[in-house]
Amino acid sequence: MVYAVGLMSGTSLDGIDAALVEISGKNETTAVKLVQFLTIPFNEATLQRIRDALSLEKSDVEKICSLNIELGEKFAQAVLEVCNKAEVSLDDLAFIGSHGQTVFHIPYARDHVYASTLQIGAPAVICERTKTTVVSNFRERDMAVGGQGAPIVPYSEYVLYQKPETTRLLQNIGGIGNVTVIPKSGTLTDMIAFDTGPGNVIINELCLHFFDQEYDKDGMYASQGNVDQLLLEELMAHPYIKKAYPKTTGREDFGKQFTATLLEKWSGSPKDLIATATMFTAKSIAEAVKPFVHGETELIIGGGGSYNKTLVSMIKSELAGVNVLIQEDIGFSSDAKEAIAMAVLANQTLENCPGNVPSATGAKRSVPLGSVTYY
Amino acid sequence: MVYAVGLMSGTSLDGIDAALVEISGKNETTAVKLVQFLTIPFNEATLQRIRDALSLEKSDVEKICSLNIELGEKFAQAVLEVCNKAEVSLDDLAFIGSHGQTVFHIPYARDHVYASTLQIGAPAVICERTKTTVVSNFRERDMAVGGQGAPIVPYSEYVLYQKPETTRLLQNIGGIGNVTVIPKSGTLTDMIAFDTGPGNVIINELCLHFFDQEYDKDGMYASQGNVDQLLLEELMAHPYIKKAYPKTTGREDFGKQFTATLLEKWSGSPKDLIATATMFTAKSIAEAVKPFVHGETELIIGGGGSYNKTLVSMIKSELAGVNVLIQEDIGFSSDAKEAIAMAVLANQTLENCPGNVPSATGAKRSVPLGSVTYY
Repeated sequence: MVYAVGLMSGTSLDGIDAALVEISGKNETTAVKLVQFLTIPFNEATLQRIRDALSLEKSDVEKICSLNIELGEKFAQAVLEVCNKAEVSLDDLAFIGSHGQTVFHIPYARDHVYASTLQIGAPAVICERTKTTVVSNFRERDMAVGGQGAPIVPYSEYVLYQKPETTRLLQNIGGIGNVTVIPKSGTLTDMIAFDTGPGNVIINELCLHFFDQEYDKDGMYASQGNVDQLLLEELMAHPYIKKAYPKTTGREDFGKQFTATLLEKWSGSPKDLIATATMFTAKSIAEAVKPFVHGETELIIGGGGSYNKTLVSMIKSELAGVNVLIQEDIGFSSDAKEAIAMAVLANQTLENCPGNVPSATGAKRSVPLGSVTYY
Repeated sequence: MVYAVGLMSGTSLDGIDAALVEISGKNETTAVKLVQFLTIPFNEATLQRIRDALSLEKSDVEKICSLNIELGEKFAQAVLEVCNKAEVSLDDLAFIGSHGQTVFHIPYARDHVYASTLQIGAPAVICERTKTTVVSNFRERDMAVGGQGAPIVPYSEYVLYQKPETTRLLQNIGGIGNVTVIPKSGTLTDMIAFDTGPGNVIINELCLHFFDQEYDKDGMYASQGNVDQLLLEELMAHPYIKKAYPKTTGREDFGKQFTATLLEKWSGSPKDLIATATMFTAKSIAEAVKPFVHGETELIIGGGGSYNKTLVSMIKSELAGVNVLIQEDIGFSSDAKEAIAMAVLANQTLENCPGNVPSATGAKRSVPLGSVTYY
């Protein structure tokens, strides 16, 4: 076993997740143990600069150039802090896997616009500050072989969650929702994964708009509102929800713009709208996973959305017969899952082993992901 | 000896330079031989998208995200073509060093803007299309150790040009001008390198504006105009020209904006203005290199500017006693120099050897540059 750190900074902009793990083996023999985990929220100024970089209107090349380095410094700081908290010396750290901050994702090519994805957070800066080799930029290679560059966690999920007698549906609810289907006694090639649609993104935007809150803590606002069935139907008719997998989405589809349009048309109570948006997330997840429910099936919810009790209970009510759990119910840290996955992917890359799951991303073949910046 | 390809796409946007070399050794024992070289101009649509990405006004995160992949495809194409022209199989290609297209460079930090640099051209795409390991993103690591990330060619220049009895001043004239000073019998740590100021950038902008020409072929327009001494004096008072090295500049300082301001104030003949801009480049180079002229000294001019006869003759007249040559005079290909340097840097990285020259970039220490994307 060696020590490694996985770094994740998701579209929900909650902050930087750093997971210190002990890891050994490769491919099916990979063994990972979480040693320490922490999330470092962005300060308000950095958060604003990230929001600007995500925005078609406010972003420009200078902002992206600068933010790439700024985030490298922040990611490095997260590594130092997680190691410090665990009292593990940097000298004992074998490598770091860094996802970077996604600033844009174009899953499908269109007129003169290439299918592409852009994660920033300079690996050279992380490498220098931590005196450790960094593997980064995982998604680009999957897209180079025809994949959508997302979802990125299925390989790690297969390694960590595969179970002989139970179909496991791993539902992550970050800004965007994504699911990984691990059929019972399935192999890597049987796995399916795709983005289900919105995660917390609409809910969070609404909480910010109406209550100046970053998110709906425990689903309190939603629990006090009533779902508007007409609006819910309209939302469920969104082309992305109707689309067959493999498919990926992002804040481009369900972010600020989408919520602004929603707000323009809404004249009812704020809490009713939040309840409706929460049910939209719940129902879009339920509809997306139903085709994969066969026999004993567990839906295991992770990500920030797993702490939204109203959302989880809505999902339960939409999925009778499925054992709906949250990550903590089975002894995993929901917060740490994606960061751990980055350490698993980095380990694969350094062993020259594949890290994408073609049945999940649509890629033509399995490839090692990412680039290595050596210390 | 193994085959390798170096890829360069400079700020002058002339196209993609691809140099196929045979290379062996590392550090001082590096031996490089140019096998084949070609430049592939960008098509008009791609060129426009690069120009948009370089522009503070027109750039946005989506354009940069897409262009990163588009340029990866173009760079890969250049590798395929140079190997094909040389009848070297991709199977025999050991690695590729890719500089990428610089879309922004911020040499000095200021209020909430980090010193940073951004090169794009997805290495994962180059890697997949060429079935070859790619080393890329060379400048970021130098900046991570306090350097300016530029100039990037001195290490390669030291290996290729060092001479016991002669001080050699290697002056590259691309969009921007940069010089590398290799003192006679000097070691790597004696080297100095910095950007001298404008290269062809102002001249090219003026040719485009007045004559719808991309550049001043052979310096013809300049040769037919007269230098406006008053304007020249004003130009030479530019703070960058007065500044002491280490220093780096870019199109941000001497590009479109700078030329537009120049044009606003100008009411004389177009050719006089081009002659004055040409003399500005010549004089800013001469003034910059004069402190390094000791005993037998050669100024060896490379880059597109070396083909501008008026510019070269102006430099000669400003530097009496210095042997002013162009790369071809000493048997090197001027066009290929920077692309060859990328193969040399990639070789250093793969050998885990340094590639920056701290006395040139201002970095605190020597480090291997770049990230490795393995095939």
